[in-house]
Amino acid sequence: MDKTFSLSRRLVAEGLGTAFLAAIVIGSGIMGERLADGNAALALLGNTLATGAGLTVLILVFGAVSGAHFNPVVSLFFACQSMISWRNCIAYGAAQFAGGIFGAFLAHAMFDLPMLDVSAQARTGIGVWTGEIVATFGLLLTIIGCLKNKPESIPYAVGLFITAGYWFTSSTSFANPAITLARSLSDTFSGIRPEDVCAFMIAQLCGCLLAALVTKWLWMHRTTRAAT
Amino acid sequence: MDKTFSLSRRLVAEGLGTAFLAAIVIGSGIMGERLADGNAALALLGNTLATGAGLTVLILVFGAVSGAHFNPVVSLFFACQSMISWRNCIAYGAAQFAGGIFGAFLAHAMFDLPMLDVSAQARTGIGVWTGEIVATFGLLLTIIGCLKNKPESIPYAVGLFITAGYWFTSSTSFANPAITLARSLSDTFSGIRPEDVCAFMIAQLCGCLLAALVTKWLWMHRTTRAAT
Amino acid sequence: MDKTFSLSRRLVAEGLGTAFLAAIVIGSGIMGERLADGNAALALLGNTLATGAGLTVLILVFGAVSGAHFNPVVSLFFACQSMISWRNCIAYGAAQFAGGIFGAFLAHAMFDLPMLDVSAQARTGIGVWTGEIVATFGLLLTIIGCLKNKPESIPYAVGLFITAGYWFTSSTSFANPAITLARSLSDTFSGIRPEDVCAFMIAQLCGCLLAALVTKWLWMHRTTRAAT
Amino acid sequence: MDKTFSLSRRLVAEGLGTAFLAAIVIGSGIMGERLADGNAALALLGNTLATGAGLTVLILVFGAVSGAHFNPVVSLFFACQSMISWRNCIAYGAAQFAGGIFGAFLAHAMFDLPMLDVSAQARTGIGVWTGEIVATFGLLLTIIGCLKNKPESIPYAVGLFITAGYWFTSSTSFANPAITLARSLSDTFSGIRPEDVCAFMIAQLCGCLLAALVTKWLWMHRTTRAAT
Repeated sequence: MDKTFSLSRRLVAEGLGTAFLAAIVIGSGIMGERLADGNAALALLGNTLATGAGLTVLILVFGAVSGAHFNPVVSLFFACQSMISWRNCIAYGAAQFAGGIFGAFLAHAMFDLPMLDVSAQARTGIGVWTGEIVATFGLLLTIIGCLKNKPESIPYAVGLFITAGYWFTSSTSFANPAITLARSLSDTFSGIRPEDVCAFMIAQLCGCLLAALVTKWLWMHRTTRAAT
Repeated sequence: MDKTFSLSRRLVAEGLGTAFLAAIVIGSGIMGERLADGNAALALLGNTLATGAGLTVLILVFGAVSGAHFNPVVSLFFACQSMISWRNCIAYGAAQFAGGIFGAFLAHAMFDLPMLDVSAQARTGIGVWTGEIVATFGLLLTIIGCLKNKPESIPYAVGLFITAGYWFTSSTSFANPAITLARSLSDTFSGIRPEDVCAFMIAQLCGCLLAALVTKWLWMHRTTRAAT
Repeated sequence: MDKTFSLSRRLVAEGLGTAFLAAIVIGSGIMGERLADGNAALALLGNTLATGAGLTVLILVFGAVSGAHFNPVVSLFFACQSMISWRNCIAYGAAQFAGGIFGAFLAHAMFDLPMLDVSAQARTGIGVWTGEIVATFGLLLTIIGCLKNKPESIPYAVGLFITAGYWFTSSTSFANPAITLARSLSDTFSGIRPEDVCAFMIAQLCGCLLAALVTKWLWMHRTTRAAT
Repeated sequence: MDKTFSLSRRLVAEGLGTAFLAAIVIGSGIMGERLADGNAALALLGNTLATGAGLTVLILVFGAVSGAHFNPVVSLFFACQSMISWRNCIAYGAAQFAGGIFGAFLAHAMFDLPMLDVSAQARTGIGVWTGEIVATFGLLLTIIGCLKNKPESIPYAVGLFITAGYWFTSSTSFANPAITLARSLSDTFSGIRPEDVCAFMIAQLCGCLLAALVTKWLWMHRTTRAAT
């Protein structure tokens, strides 16, 4: 993280980046659903392309400003590793949740939908919870593995991991509490019922815990470098 | 920008690059529509792949010659930031508009269509205008963010941003007045009615203004480097 | 290979990476089949995107730990070239087969299917065997060619080769005995009947032998560098 | 081009690379057509993904051996620029045509089709010829532009250009006489009638000539570097 950026700039970067991410996830879901003529695979293809590509861009743009977390679980993970302070972790989280909600609103404004809505899309059960654990574990493993070895590949690796995750996990890899909340406010393709949000967040925390254990053991014998 | 290239070479690079960009946008739209059997999501997938890939290549090829703007809003933005002169900005804009029109003609020639045409595709309303503001703002944020931090990633980042933009913005991210004009001259998948062009360009200028404010505040405390 | 990683860490990296790879291959096949409404090209598109993207990420993450083989044929090839010891080759192979089976189980858990199953998907005949020879030969050529020239491109090159292989080889490029076994335990889109597994593995060994001959002749006059 | 590789190794690299390229182009066309249920856009999507990804890999693998032309027009272009000798240009061309034919045979072997066949796919008319001129011109512009500025991006730029070209040119960007001949020997999705081959090759030569003029003027004032 570039120390020359003030906290206010870093929070704006986190908020703006998460807003874009939510707008990309939700907006491309709406576009996919509208154009795909009822074929969910086609809608998910468009949703995947946009999310993978957009996430890579956002990390390239904001990585040097705020670290480009855009995800409370990532900030929490870095706080546990003493790579950011707990105070900043909480501020980051607030910016991310607020940004996510604004992004949902932005997607709706672009597609002439009500500002915010309540999703009716059920996503519950042991299968999708397992999917969220795998997705969050994999996302953090990707970040830490690349950080230890080739940090400059992180934007591409994270975008590619989510590209894969949209298809190989049963939950389509939310892996992000701020985006999960934002999706619950949109009654569209990428939505999730509010009553299913809490279990998703718990699964994401489980994935985070698992990643902390595995990455610590795998890479603990090497000197820790600061997050980029 | 490599100072060893004369203005005439740089203008040819801008004109040729914008012609290729317009031919890619319009040509792949025609191909998509012809093959997709009425499924708009499939047509947009082909349109997206071609535009994202092609734009990246064009920036790699012409970046060192002219800066690879291919977009009057980008040239305007750089002129406002004193990164190119106003005289060059106007010359670039002329080359870009001329190149875009030639590209539309080229696409039509390849697909055995009338040289230039008038699009009947309505694209109007607050939703798509918001889409254009978001798209142009995001495009400029991508360029400036990468320029400040890792300029060598710009060709890939811009291609990926437009890949995402085709799906997550309701306007499918024109984000370029020269390409908007070129599209209005093609009665095909990626067209736009002439009467809708002006509002699109105004929205693009709004996105540009917004980007100027945000990027100035976010990165103003760091030394400015010349455009690549 | 980074010598600072203990064998146990390297085996966990191989096992975990192969588990993720199997979960990606099988999971995205299930997702594709469920959403694609009977259109196999759409299902394979999702399967391809996920596998190509995911494999690249896994090599970026684990490359510096274990070499990121995730494939007994790759380990065998490196052992024949004296780039890893035979003892490690056998340990790697065991970790890869175990990881692959665990990955199949993980995919099933995510998609609410029985833990392990028996595939009914016939994949046999001279055509698909030729496909497997070409796929494995091409995969090893990719690895060795990049290793000799630009090792940092290996993660991307391998992901892109498999992306191509899913479409241009009649067998959809298994090219990996551990993943072949894992697929035989899943009665889903990417499965293979247990009785067809043995011939696939023999074809993969033939491809490996052919690659050893060709790469040795093509690059033998240059100094060998260690595997990354 | 690495001078430590003997001519025989370079010819094998050209032949093997062109064989793989032809097998990828033809094989993925067959797979696409078989799975796409009559939807040509879907078939072309698979064809595009495989070709773009595969071409990038082949250039990464063989670039340091032979320059990775795989294309008589590219070798001709480099001979005209005195970057390879005319003697080598002719030898490269022979290896490329032979490799292309072998690749067509290999694709047929993998998909249980007759060894070689005669395509019945009509591709003729001013539109597709214009498409071939644009495609070949663009391909050479891509190669020279990247070579002058960032040679390490050539494998990705060429793969991305062909990805775009499959959609934005009416001819789907053959842009390669050796691959054109190989495609005429396959009565499948990517084929071309033998009687249409000659005009395609003439169009490709026109594109080459145009590229020679434009690239010479654009970059002639800069020192020429050797082909990578």
